[in-house]
Amino acid sequence: MVHGGANVRTRLSAAVGAANVLTEPSDVDPFLTDWRGRFHGRAVAVVRPGSAAEVAEVVRVCREEQIPIVAQGGNTGMCGGATPDETGHAVVLSLTRLNRVRGIDTDNATITVEAGVPLAQVQQAAADAGFHFPLSLASEGSCTIGGNLSTNAGGTAVLRFGNTRELVLGLEVVLADGRIWNGLRALRKDNTGYDLKQLFVGAEGTLGIITAAVLKLFPKPLARVTALAAIADPEGAVALLRLLKRGLSDRLVGFELISALALSICRKHHPDLPDPVPGHPWYALVQVDDSGTSTALNEQVEEVFAEAVESSIARDVAIAQSHEQAQALWALRENISESQRREGPNIKHDISLPVSAIPDFLRASEQALSAAFPGAQLVIFGHLGDGNLHYNLAAPPGEDAQRFMDNATRANHIVHDLVAERGGSISAEHGIGQLKREELKRYKAPVELDLMRAIKQALDPTGLLNPGKVL
Amino acid sequence: MVHGGANVRTRLSAAVGAANVLTEPSDVDPFLTDWRGRFHGRAVAVVRPGSAAEVAEVVRVCREEQIPIVAQGGNTGMCGGATPDETGHAVVLSLTRLNRVRGIDTDNATITVEAGVPLAQVQQAAADAGFHFPLSLASEGSCTIGGNLSTNAGGTAVLRFGNTRELVLGLEVVLADGRIWNGLRALRKDNTGYDLKQLFVGAEGTLGIITAAVLKLFPKPLARVTALAAIADPEGAVALLRLLKRGLSDRLVGFELISALALSICRKHHPDLPDPVPGHPWYALVQVDDSGTSTALNEQVEEVFAEAVESSIARDVAIAQSHEQAQALWALRENISESQRREGPNIKHDISLPVSAIPDFLRASEQALSAAFPGAQLVIFGHLGDGNLHYNLAAPPGEDAQRFMDNATRANHIVHDLVAERGGSISAEHGIGQLKREELKRYKAPVELDLMRAIKQALDPTGLLNPGKVL
Repeated sequence: MVHGGANVRTRLSAAVGAANVLTEPSDVDPFLTDWRGRFHGRAVAVVRPGSAAEVAEVVRVCREEQIPIVAQGGNTGMCGGATPDETGHAVVLSLTRLNRVRGIDTDNATITVEAGVPLAQVQQAAADAGFHFPLSLASEGSCTIGGNLSTNAGGTAVLRFGNTRELVLGLEVVLADGRIWNGLRALRKDNTGYDLKQLFVGAEGTLGIITAAVLKLFPKPLARVTALAAIADPEGAVALLRLLKRGLSDRLVGFELISALALSICRKHHPDLPDPVPGHPWYALVQVDDSGTSTALNEQVEEVFAEAVESSIARDVAIAQSHEQAQALWALRENISESQRREGPNIKHDISLPVSAIPDFLRASEQALSAAFPGAQLVIFGHLGDGNLHYNLAAPPGEDAQRFMDNATRANHIVHDLVAERGGSISAEHGIGQLKREELKRYKAPVELDLMRAIKQALDPTGLLNPGKVL
Repeated sequence: MVHGGANVRTRLSAAVGAANVLTEPSDVDPFLTDWRGRFHGRAVAVVRPGSAAEVAEVVRVCREEQIPIVAQGGNTGMCGGATPDETGHAVVLSLTRLNRVRGIDTDNATITVEAGVPLAQVQQAAADAGFHFPLSLASEGSCTIGGNLSTNAGGTAVLRFGNTRELVLGLEVVLADGRIWNGLRALRKDNTGYDLKQLFVGAEGTLGIITAAVLKLFPKPLARVTALAAIADPEGAVALLRLLKRGLSDRLVGFELISALALSICRKHHPDLPDPVPGHPWYALVQVDDSGTSTALNEQVEEVFAEAVESSIARDVAIAQSHEQAQALWALRENISESQRREGPNIKHDISLPVSAIPDFLRASEQALSAAFPGAQLVIFGHLGDGNLHYNLAAPPGEDAQRFMDNATRANHIVHDLVAERGGSISAEHGIGQLKREELKRYKAPVELDLMRAIKQALDPTGLLNPGKVL
């Protein structure tokens, strides 16, 4: 709270009202630490504007006072992208008061929302109007759509619907110079110049501050089938994915790979969860939706799985026979992270690869990590359908888990080197933030870093938008 | 052929081989006029590099010699974006020798192609590998995928698969400084920084020169139903679209609106085409695909259309009973432009609107145009499913068609003003090129033009990439 001083706070209060300029430690502390408690910062103040115009005014004040701005949504990011640094020079700009659903256009199948609307409320507003908004994440109750946009969030339905990036038609953005760009177009086709909106999506608040968005809506799924298939190895998972895509096409919404170890850790901490196809090395959790009139989805899925078992692509399969059974299968997947956390800290990776490269990557990485860290345990799960794995490394049984974390950088480099060699990404869905900023420099080609810097310089020449993040 | 002179041609010949530096009028002329014959230019030479490295070398030579570069694919653009200006200062850089399919990854469902591969060859290569590449345009036999990417081409399957923009995972681009950016990633998820590729897609060669791309592939459709529905008015078309989306979901691939006049002009010049539901004011051509195992698609479509007729949303419907019948229905749509051309010149518009705004727009524009040009004929058709109309104005019967074209700017402004008021776009799928450059300035907000200029300045500071186009 040292920097800036009374004048800045007075000007910010004039912009958003004194009640929305927080400076008391008890008020600001929740905004200065990320939810996982990995990053801690300080700030001149936390400001909570209530409209895009107020956001713009805050940006103008900060520009004139040369104060960095850290935009923040629900503070559920994975990479510290919304946490200020320790200098205390920055203002945290919380978007949570921009929380209106501005409208739903049923004939156009679009919804216009402000940045601070929690994802679950976007989903609910869509459902209330008879539609489906497919973005779905563990943190959907508290993350905001603005944060989802700024980090290009992924989740469990990317296989069918794409990342957040692919769900957006238009944006309203406050630019670094304090002007508002109204790009809230609700058009599926618009070839009038550069696609500016995609620059701001996934830029983590470093190029502009997203204040509202027009999002695509989809027909509600009327039928849903959830299944857990047992498979012999990652090659089998890739073959099963291909078979299901061919047989079910767009009906295939989710395809999650889970290793036996990941499943057993989950079940250890959630012993009442089912174990419908026990004793196999790998599993695929599959979700199939149909929004059409077909009521034969179950039969269709059974047919495709029968083919998979007959051709030895799958070893066994359990198809949920009720909504409760389906939820229990999903709980097996969704409780892995939390169960793992209870076991102790993990060296985590959020990687993606071409799906075809995953079996070879898993072989090579297991070999390299076993050699480097004998006895360390690999807990592997993730969205195989879009090539995204959460690839985690736990201490060998008996070794101090916290001390094992000292190996993080070395393990990261082993994993990320193997990912990079195979054309993969070191951050599939979590972003860069401050966590992977150095790692980004290690793996991005200089020409691509130069391009990113040129864009940053063009849109934020004074560098006040979320400095120290991404680039 | 005045500018540049011998030195430049020598250097270009060193870069790509003398045989690939065209300067004879008979050789260069086809590259200097757009296919519709609306734009004519001159050039120092036409260069035909054979690789990305050669493209880069040409760019470096041009940069050093301060020669503008006009990239060109199949020369099938609608807005003169690939035609040089009349100064003769530019080099036309033809990408057609970059014509290799670099590879198909079946487990990853991706294809990697060079910029000069004709779209039809991309489709064929995908089909040969058991996949579907959904981009489909009238010019697919001669347009190149690089041109499709550079103009973000649309077509008839955008409703389901999106524009070219949504089909690309990675790009290789030669930048204005002559460096090659290898962004040929084949990943569905990659959150490592700004989404650079989408900047180059749709930029019409003004920010960089796309030399290769990784594209998404989809399961082959196994079942297809094509139908022509008669409807009372545009409101009925919007209601039918909504009903079909709800009932058929992703199976709905195409939804084309056709006015009775558009259909009758087509049938006048193609009298052997069918007239299965005669005597209605509006029609919707509907295509439904299924790549799943379902063989009941026909029944399903019949069921939804039965509901549409019962509820008076559709007046009548003809469902094709054979591949030949389906093709004949599509021919009714696909021959409209050409039939119209035979009737004489037209004042054309390639507009998009929120689907919900289309009925009101059609009423308002008909009223305004009737008042301004009594007796003029509106020929309306297009991709209603994604809000895109081809909205054309023909001379009143008896009036000189060529002289009627003098009204183009006035008619454009009437139509585009009404489009802009309703949040629409003055170029839905054809781009800006040189045709709509002034119109762009009329309708884009200054803040958005500033953003575009900042991007242009950042990526092409010397302004040698396709000057006079887009911005």
